[in-house]
Amino acid sequence: MVKIHPTAIVSDSAIIGTNVSIGPYSIIYDNAFIGENSVIEAYCQIGYPSIISDNDIAPTYIGNNSLIRSNTTIYHSAELGDNLTTGHNVIVRENTHAGCYFQIGTFTEIQGDCEIGNYVRFQSNIFIAKKTIIKDFVWILPNVTITNDPTPPSDNLIGCLIDDYAVICSGSLILPGLTIGKGSVVGALSCVTKNVRDGFCVLGNPAKETKEANKIIKKDLSGLPAYPWTNHFNRGYPGNITMNWNK
Amino acid sequence: MVKIHPTAIVSDSAIIGTNVSIGPYSIIYDNAFIGENSVIEAYCQIGYPSIISDNDIAPTYIGNNSLIRSNTTIYHSAELGDNLTTGHNVIVRENTHAGCYFQIGTFTEIQGDCEIGNYVRFQSNIFIAKKTIIKDFVWILPNVTITNDPTPPSDNLIGCLIDDYAVICSGSLILPGLTIGKGSVVGALSCVTKNVRDGFCVLGNPAKETKEANKIIKKDLSGLPAYPWTNHFNRGYPGNITMNWNK
Amino acid sequence: MVKIHPTAIVSDSAIIGTNVSIGPYSIIYDNAFIGENSVIEAYCQIGYPSIISDNDIAPTYIGNNSLIRSNTTIYHSAELGDNLTTGHNVIVRENTHAGCYFQIGTFTEIQGDCEIGNYVRFQSNIFIAKKTIIKDFVWILPNVTITNDPTPPSDNLIGCLIDDYAVICSGSLILPGLTIGKGSVVGALSCVTKNVRDGFCVLGNPAKETKEANKIIKKDLSGLPAYPWTNHFNRGYPGNITMNWNK
Repeated sequence: MVKIHPTAIVSDSAIIGTNVSIGPYSIIYDNAFIGENSVIEAYCQIGYPSIISDNDIAPTYIGNNSLIRSNTTIYHSAELGDNLTTGHNVIVRENTHAGCYFQIGTFTEIQGDCEIGNYVRFQSNIFIAKKTIIKDFVWILPNVTITNDPTPPSDNLIGCLIDDYAVICSGSLILPGLTIGKGSVVGALSCVTKNVRDGFCVLGNPAKETKEANKIIKKDLSGLPAYPWTNHFNRGYPGNITMNWNK
Repeated sequence: MVKIHPTAIVSDSAIIGTNVSIGPYSIIYDNAFIGENSVIEAYCQIGYPSIISDNDIAPTYIGNNSLIRSNTTIYHSAELGDNLTTGHNVIVRENTHAGCYFQIGTFTEIQGDCEIGNYVRFQSNIFIAKKTIIKDFVWILPNVTITNDPTPPSDNLIGCLIDDYAVICSGSLILPGLTIGKGSVVGALSCVTKNVRDGFCVLGNPAKETKEANKIIKKDLSGLPAYPWTNHFNRGYPGNITMNWNK
Repeated sequence: MVKIHPTAIVSDSAIIGTNVSIGPYSIIYDNAFIGENSVIEAYCQIGYPSIISDNDIAPTYIGNNSLIRSNTTIYHSAELGDNLTTGHNVIVRENTHAGCYFQIGTFTEIQGDCEIGNYVRFQSNIFIAKKTIIKDFVWILPNVTITNDPTPPSDNLIGCLIDDYAVICSGSLILPGLTIGKGSVVGALSCVTKNVRDGFCVLGNPAKETKEANKIIKKDLSGLPAYPWTNHFNRGYPGNITMNWNK
C-alpha cells in the first residue's frame, strides 16, 4: 500500500516502498528510491536534478522509516540511511551520503559531497559546506557554519572533519580544513581557527581551549559532569545503542 | 464571504472567519481557526500536525486581521493574537502563544512552548528555542539566536526571558536562562553570557556592559538619545498605543 | 515555444519570453516580464505583490538565460539582469536592482531598495538590509548580515556600500552605513564597526585591520597571494570578462 496524494507528481522511474505516504504538491523525480514506511510531507522534492549539471539524474536513496517534513528538497545522488528525519525547508545537495537515524533541522543546508555517519543530529539553520566529513553521534546546534574555502573565492576547498560525539554549540563557525576532536565541545558563537583536541572544550572569537569537556558541570542540581553527554542523555536513540551508555 | 483558492486544501473541521482569503496550494488542517479579515497566502500550512506526536491535533488559533505570507507553517496548538503579520517561510511550532500585533520576519523559527507578549517584532532569520518568554514591545533583529540548553545535548532546557521594550541587535546570541532587562539593548554580534540589567547596553563576545541605553545618541543630526526608542519611533503601532509615547 | 506546467498559475498580463520554462505550482503575477531561455522551477513566485502596499503591482523584470530555483519569491518592482541564478528559497524584495550574472544562494534574503552591480555572487543564508549598495564582482559568503539601522528601531536607515571585488567571509556582520573598500577582505565571523580600506583585510569582533589583502597567501602549495582573487579564480565568469584577469 502506497498513499500518494492526487496532487503529488511522481516519476514513473521512481521506486516507492510499501506503506510510503507522499503529501500534497510534492514532486518525486526520476530514479528516486524511497524506503518502506517513510512519510514525505507536502511541497517536498526528492531526487531534484541539478539543472546546470551535464549528467543524467543519478539515483537518490531515502532509507526506510524516514520522515521528510514539508518543503524539503533532496538532490539527486544523495543517499540517506534508514530512520532519517528532516525539519521543514531542508536542502540536501548532490553526493551527500549519510548513515542511519540522521536528523536535520529546519532551514539547514548541506551543500553536497559530504560524508555523514550514523546517529548524527543537526538542529536548525546550519550550513555545511562541500567536502565536510562528520562521524557518528555528532551534535550540531542552530546557526552553525562549517566552511571549506580558506581564501574565498578559490578552487582549493578543504573540508572539515567533525569526529565522534563532538558537540558544536549555536552560532559557531569552523574554519576550513579543521578537525573537531572526538567528544570535544565548541562553545556558542565561537570562531574555531585551530584543531580542537579530543575531549576538550574551546570557546570565544577566536576560540581558545578552556578546559577538558568532562570538567563542565551540568547546570542542574546534580553536580554531575555534562560530558561525555552519553552518560546522561539518550532521548531518541534506539535502545540497543543506548543500553550501555549510562554504565 | 470567504475566498478560498480552488487549489487550497481546507479541512472540514477548520473554522474560517468572514472575509478571509486563502491562497493557492495552501493547506488548512483540522481544528484550525482563522479570524476574520485575515489573509493566508500561497503554500501556507495552518494547524500543521506534528506527526511524531501521539496526540490528536489540538486547535490552532490565528487572530483577526492577520497576514500570513507565503510558505509559512503554523503548527497545531499555536495561539496567535489579532493583527499577526508573518514574512515568508516562517515556522511557528507547538504551544506558541503570542499576543496581538506580533510581527515575525522571513525565515524565522519559533521552536514552540514559548510565551510572547503584545506588539513584539521579530525580523528575519531568528531562532527562538523552546521555553523562551518574551514580554511586550520587544524588538529582535535579524539572525539572533536565543538558546535554551546550557550543556547540549541535555534534558535540562532553561528558557530566556526578554523583558519589555528590550532590543536585541543583529547576529547576537543569548545563552540559556538569561534575563534581558527592560529597555535594555544588546549590541550586534554579541554573545550574552550574563543577565542584562534594565536600561543598560551590552556589547561584544563575551558581551560586556558598556553604558546606560539612554546614553546612546541617535546617528542622525538630532543629537537626541536613541533610547527609550518609544521617544522617537512609532511606525506601525496603533494610535491608541503610541499617543502618549512622545510626551 | 514556452513550456508552462499545467499547475502553474500565470497572469494574463505577464510577458513570458521565448523558450522559457515555468515549473509546477509556480505563480507568475501581473506585470512580470521573464526573459528568453529562462527557467523558473517549482513553487516560485515572480512579481509577488506586497499586500500591505497601496500601490498597484509594479512591473518585475527577470533577464534572459536566468535560472530561478524552487521556492524563490521575487517581489514586484525588482529588476534583475541577464543570467541571474538563484538557489532555493530565495527572497528578493521590492525595488531591488541588479546587473548581469547575479548569483544568489539558498535562503538568502534581499530586503529591497538595493542597488547591486554586475557579476556579484551571494552564497547561502545572507541577509541584506534595505538601502545596501553593492558594486561589481563582490563575493558574500554564507550567513553574512548587512545591517542598516544604527540604533534600532528607528527611521534613520543608512545602507552600507560594498565596493568592487570585496570579499565578505562567512558569518560576518557589517554595521550600518559602512564602506567595505575595493578588493578588501572581511574575515570570518567578524563584526565590522569601521570602514574597511581598499585592499586591506580586517578580522575579529570588533574587526581590526590585520594586513594588506595581497599579503594573504593561498593555503595550497603554490605560495602565491590569494588576493586579488582574479589572479587565480575565474570559474563561472564569461570568457570575455576573465580573458585579461590572469595576466
